Amino acid sequence: MEKIHLSNTANALRDLYVYKKIGTLNGHVLSVVNVENRTLDFHVHEHSDELFYVIEGAFRLETEKRNFDMAEGELIIVPKGVRHRPVVTTLSRFLLMELGGTLNKENSGDLYEA
Amino acid sequence: MEKIHLSNTANALRDLYVYKKIGTLNGHVLSVVNVENRTLDFHVHEHSDELFYVIEGAFRLETEKRNFDMAEGELIIVPKGVRHRPVVTTLSRFLLMELGGTLNKENSGDLYEA
Repeated sequence: MEKIHLSNTANALRDLYVYKKIGTLNGHVLSVVNVENRTLDFHVHEHSDELFYVIEGAFRLETEKRNFDMAEGELIIVPKGVRHRPVVTTLSRFLLMELGGTLNKENSGDLYEA
Repeated sequence: MEKIHLSNTANALRDLYVYKKIGTLNGHVLSVVNVENRTLDFHVHEHSDELFYVIEGAFRLETEKRNFDMAEGELIIVPKGVRHRPVVTTLSRFLLMELGGTLNKENSGDLYEA
């Protein structure tokens, strides 16, 4: 067991687009990542809901039905099967959470390393 | 789908000790709760890890091996089977997450309502 300070952990990452695993919860992976100027392709996770939490910054989460302008301190859960893409402009720091094995290079812009 | 601002949602709760469900992720329940001057009995969750995130305030998470003084912005995951108890002194706001059905009146100080 260890405690994690979310923003300090994200701030300490040297590189953008590197997913740092910070813990697991019942087979789900929690990771933090810093992103700037990046739009992923639309994609679907068939087997897992996906949580986005904005530690610092902002982004737009686009779905086919609606877009969500997400601000610092806000959290959203994309249900499995819902096509979505994150659009990040300014440097922002995120907590992500999903079932282990959900993220891969194809749905992370070639950025995720298991 | 809806976005949730964690601290605003917690601040809007009128009562202490009321777990407000804010979402689900693959059968896991996310809830926010405001607590002050409350120590739960030591207990174990046999079937789920449990996540605590300090939205505002602080608390001490006690386990049999070690205590963790948790500050605002910090997150910790208690693995299933680990005896623990939260000790909250000053008014603090938390995000909790665990497998649905894990929390009940016995392990929440008679506070949890499904």
